Formats: sequence, C-alpha cells, structure tokens
Amino acid sequence: MQIVKKTIECRGTADTDLIDITDEVVAIVRESGTSAGIVNVFVPGSTASVTTIEYESGALADLERAIERMAPRDMHYDHDARWGDGNGYSHVRAALLGPNVAIPIDQGQPLLGTWQQILLCDFDNRPRSRQVIVQVVGD
Amino acid sequence: MQIVKKTIECRGTADTDLIDITDEVVAIVRESGTSAGIVNVFVPGSTASVTTIEYESGALADLERAIERMAPRDMHYDHDARWGDGNGYSHVRAALLGPNVAIPIDQGQPLLGTWQQILLCDFDNRPRSRQVIVQVVGD
Amino acid sequence: MQIVKKTIECRGTADTDLIDITDEVVAIVRESGTSAGIVNVFVPGSTASVTTIEYESGALADLERAIERMAPRDMHYDHDARWGDGNGYSHVRAALLGPNVAIPIDQGQPLLGTWQQILLCDFDNRPRSRQVIVQVVGD
Repeated sequence: MQIVKKTIECRGTADTDLIDITDEVVAIVRESGTSAGIVNVFVPGSTASVTTIEYESGALADLERAIERMAPRDMHYDHDARWGDGNGYSHVRAALLGPNVAIPIDQGQPLLGTWQQILLCDFDNRPRSRQVIVQVVGD
Repeated sequence: MQIVKKTIECRGTADTDLIDITDEVVAIVRESGTSAGIVNVFVPGSTASVTTIEYESGALADLERAIERMAPRDMHYDHDARWGDGNGYSHVRAALLGPNVAIPIDQGQPLLGTWQQILLCDFDNRPRSRQVIVQVVGD
Repeated sequence: MQIVKKTIECRGTADTDLIDITDEVVAIVRESGTSAGIVNVFVPGSTASVTTIEYESGALADLERAIERMAPRDMHYDHDARWGDGNGYSHVRAALLGPNVAIPIDQGQPLLGTWQQILLCDFDNRPRSRQVIVQVVGD
C-alpha cells in the first residue's frame, strides 16, 4: 500500500467559479499505478469547496442559485464588517459545502457515476490561484 | 494494512428515499476482519448522497423538509429546461450534501454514536438501483 | 504505512458551539510521526458536525446565521413532537453538514490554508461532552 500526492493548479475569476477537475484527478490516479484504493480530493483555503455534480451548464446554474439562497452575496456579513474584504458570503458557502470528497478507485479509475464529475467550487470574490491536493491511497 | 471493497445494492422508489445502510456497512467491516481503520461509504451518481442521522421517522421528515427548503422540488431548474428529465432538484440536493462519509473503525466496528446511522439519500424522481461502494482500509 | 487513532475531548454549552480543534489535530499528527498521509476527523453522534472555516468571530456568526436560516431553531420539528427533547433542529443541521473531513498531511502537518481551521460544530441544545476521533493514515 502506498500514498501518492499531487497538486492540481486552478485559476479562478473574480466571481464564483465551478470548475471540472475530473480529468486531472483521473490522470493522477492512472499515473500513480494504483488499481484499488481511495482518492481524497481536498482544497486548502477557507473560501472554496469540493463536491461532485453532473457537469452541465443547467445543473451548475441551478446549484449556484441554491447556494445564493443559502448564503446570498448581497446581505450583511459580520466578517465583512470586521475585515472589509467583502467575501463573507464566500466563507459561509465554503464551510457549508466542505473542503473534500473521498472517492473509491476500481481497476485504476475513480468509481464515479457516468454523469458525475468532480467539482471545485471557488467561492471567492477575487481571482485566486488554487492548489487542489489529490492523494491516492492503495495498491 | 489492506483495502477491502464491497457493494451494497439499494432500490429506490420514484420519490426521495432516505435509506438506513448501517447494518450492511457494519457487516462488511466485520467480514473484512479489520480491527482498526477507516470505512469510506460512497455513492456513485449525481442524484444521491451519503450522510449520517438518527434514523427515526421524525428526524427523517425534518431533514426532508429542510432539503425541500434548500432546493424545492417545484421551481424552475435550468437542468430540466435543457434535458426534460425533471430531476434538476435532485442534482442540486446531491451536490449540496455530497457523495461520501469516512467513519473510523474501532475493535472491528464503525465508531458511530448510539443514535447515529449511515444514511443513503436517493434524491432522484424515478426508481433507481443504487450500488453504494464500501471500502475498508486498515489492519 | 500505519494508522494512529486518538480522541479529542470537547465540552459544549447548552447552545450551538463552534469549537476550533486545529491545534489538537496538528499535535496528534505531529506525535504520530507521520510525514505523508491523510488525517480523518470524525465526530460520533447525530447532533454535531466537522467542517473547516476561517476561525474568526465574524465568519462564525455569519455561518451560524446561515445554518439558522437552513434549519431554524424555533419551528416545528417532528422529532421534537415524538421525543420531546427539543433538539430536532440539531439533528437536521448535523445531517446537512456531515460528520467528517479528511485532510492531507504534508511534511508532518495538515495541509490547511493559512486562514483555514478545523471546526467542531456542536449543534445540541444541552451541554454535551464530545469525543472527536482523529485518525492518521500514512508513512
């Protein structure tokens, strides 16, 4: 059993970015030579999350609207009142969705559904460079 | 250290199903002979999630109502406008709750609270057969 | 590769507690002697969750308000009608946020962002003693 760690670099814009990182994760799993195991996908930082979704523009817009209902961009946030960086909504969204998913590996591939992709959500209000950490544990 | 992978088969109905899969996970952990480790429970697909809850009808109904407030069944979804399958709300719910939980194993048992069960949420609007992937990592 | 399991003891109050457990997790990782691996942080029980956030009072208050919108304390819960313990909202909140996060370890440290802390959310309505389970998997 071994652990392999790699990093995916992503560049966000100044608004919410929903980025498909499935291909990068699949490539890292393949290159690790792991046939059976788990891949943990984690984003460092307090204004971003990782989840899974069917990556098509309709479902992405629907998700963004649901998140906007949960933590609207244009309301009062104590974080903004204290720090003035205007991304209080980003912090709340990231805490609600969480920073990681752990996906099984079978026959050298993440065992995702046919229409299920791995989604990096960059909720910050300014362009950020993100380093997503991908760890493969297995044989 | 070893990894054992097993599948739990679940059958949903045409509406939101909240299914207790604790007994099946406990059995897989026991049969794996793992005394100390982690069990990762993951559902492939983009309209289902895994979490934990006290599995009693009151808390389940309360959870379902909260999810209905977050992503109501009867509103406009772009996903439905594009694809016509009417399960836009299912995709949003699944992305918000996430596809997996990872639970410690101690003395050959998942270390759950007394009133804490492992919950498969099948949010789809049509009957689905689900294969939940259970992986046991440990000694 | 080895697995080390430790417990963090936390004491909640009678209301929602948002507790920073980063220092305790960092210490457990360091004492395990693991330089590369994963740390899984899991809370047993059905009225608590683990996530990450920038641990400052503004963001914490903002998160608490968002969770209050998702599962308000003062509304009807079937769980309360059946069991009379008044913590139906706690169960719903815990199921929505989930019981664990899994964080990469690099050079003997959890690979968190600079402003990202590990957060225990104790949603219960009475003082509880919590045993958070911290497992370190790696080399």
